[in-house]
Amino acid sequence: MENIAYYNGKISSIEEMMIPMNERSSYFGDGVYDAMFTVEHVPLQLDDHLRRFYRSARKIEIEIPMGFDELRAMVLDFCKKVDSPDQMVYVQATRGVGMRGHAYRFADGKPSLWIWVKPDVLDPMDRDYKCITMEDTRFLHCDIKTLNLLPSVIYTQRAEEKGCDETILHRGDRVTECAHSNVHILKNGKLKTAPCDNLILPGITRAHRIAQCHEMGIPVIEEPFTVEEMMNADEVFFTSCSALCCRITEIDGKPVGGRDPQLIKRIQDAAWKEAMEEVKALSPSVR
Amino acid sequence: MENIAYYNGKISSIEEMMIPMNERSSYFGDGVYDAMFTVEHVPLQLDDHLRRFYRSARKIEIEIPMGFDELRAMVLDFCKKVDSPDQMVYVQATRGVGMRGHAYRFADGKPSLWIWVKPDVLDPMDRDYKCITMEDTRFLHCDIKTLNLLPSVIYTQRAEEKGCDETILHRGDRVTECAHSNVHILKNGKLKTAPCDNLILPGITRAHRIAQCHEMGIPVIEEPFTVEEMMNADEVFFTSCSALCCRITEIDGKPVGGRDPQLIKRIQDAAWKEAMEEVKALSPSVR
Repeated sequence: MENIAYYNGKISSIEEMMIPMNERSSYFGDGVYDAMFTVEHVPLQLDDHLRRFYRSARKIEIEIPMGFDELRAMVLDFCKKVDSPDQMVYVQATRGVGMRGHAYRFADGKPSLWIWVKPDVLDPMDRDYKCITMEDTRFLHCDIKTLNLLPSVIYTQRAEEKGCDETILHRGDRVTECAHSNVHILKNGKLKTAPCDNLILPGITRAHRIAQCHEMGIPVIEEPFTVEEMMNADEVFFTSCSALCCRITEIDGKPVGGRDPQLIKRIQDAAWKEAMEEVKALSPSVR
Repeated sequence: MENIAYYNGKISSIEEMMIPMNERSSYFGDGVYDAMFTVEHVPLQLDDHLRRFYRSARKIEIEIPMGFDELRAMVLDFCKKVDSPDQMVYVQATRGVGMRGHAYRFADGKPSLWIWVKPDVLDPMDRDYKCITMEDTRFLHCDIKTLNLLPSVIYTQRAEEKGCDETILHRGDRVTECAHSNVHILKNGKLKTAPCDNLILPGITRAHRIAQCHEMGIPVIEEPFTVEEMMNADEVFFTSCSALCCRITEIDGKPVGGRDPQLIKRIQDAAWKEAMEEVKALSPSVR
């Protein structure tokens, strides 16, 4: 099939799936989500993403109404059923359905589970990316993957209007992350990336690139860096579930990076190798 | 009828209304709303609320797919149709329906309009209210009435868990507003209230209380005040579409206010008089 959606037990195409108006997502963005991309029907870092999904839900006191193993099996089944081997997998949990009211203690609804899989492709690593910068005006809970994403919508819109791929955010001088990815710099052979606090999402792909750098003997500094440091870095790149390691060569119309092509190529090659190994390991159970 | 809902041309009860999963509210909270309360089927400050609704939408580049006059007439018609004379009126505009993607420039969907009216009552002014305080960790666009309300959900939940009515927010020392209302203090015969910047919603009821204080010769200071100033104020009260002027007598378990009962009573009486005049003026067209 072309795509597939699940909502609280109902299954249909994404376009045809209907939900109650009184979903708390409709009024409050009262929920969390996670997303993965597949290669050959295999969702990359599936277990890491699902673990983070349950963690995000716990942080806002939502109990996902399905166990890990069952959810994992359902996701893999959906990935098998969708025709395109390259897919985006989306899971979401909301606080459920009920008459609008901020507090939830006495709400009668139980949490809702949403899943869908649709054709989509990873951001290619063999091209360069352009970004803009904007002041980070988001809330102070950016470590939780919630549905309160209106600022990220606006940031992404502004990037597209300027023919760019992403928006790099900063609070004053400090670079935090991008509208929907983490951003990192290479300088003097070292990887520098913002630490995991409440200002950035603890990216799964970020964690994997850091682990691989450690393995490859590339020193990793998890400390905040400034806009100026980024503009003068040897290389700049972003990571997300759709971007294993995407090189940024222009920010706000100015050229950046390009001074350590060997090192970024090593990181990209290691990222792709890891993805391929994962595909090989899971493929028999998927196809 | 008991209640009524409208979504993009469809009409049903609120509980039965279904919407597409692919509404951008589902994924991003990509929309704005406004709310009013009625007395005798008359929504208080209807025109002010609807004007703010269009203003909020413009601020995030959503064009509400219905003109002001038509929307106003529809709201009044719904208020007439719902049996209870005491109602909450809710209007919402979202960026519409489409496959999930942050940017909206190339989205094919047009904005969605949501309306519903259900039985609900104003917060009574003849009782006292208890509040808790919490650090304000919201985004820096609190002047726009968006659907990114997860922090307010959590704040309200915490208040209810402590048997309280509202949560007063502060950024460091500075009091901003409450989870879903504006907060004000009386000191030495003057009203002090936070100025309209990006940290608070420009409350319609707030504006009406300020205008009335001016008329009554009560000096108004629109300047930030601190938590300490609030704890030592002569009176503390909050306002919202459901709270014309509600007196706070306990914050974080400590008694507050109670030192200028005549002044707060004058403000409450003026508020109620204004509401009654509005009801009288609009009633013939409503009933």
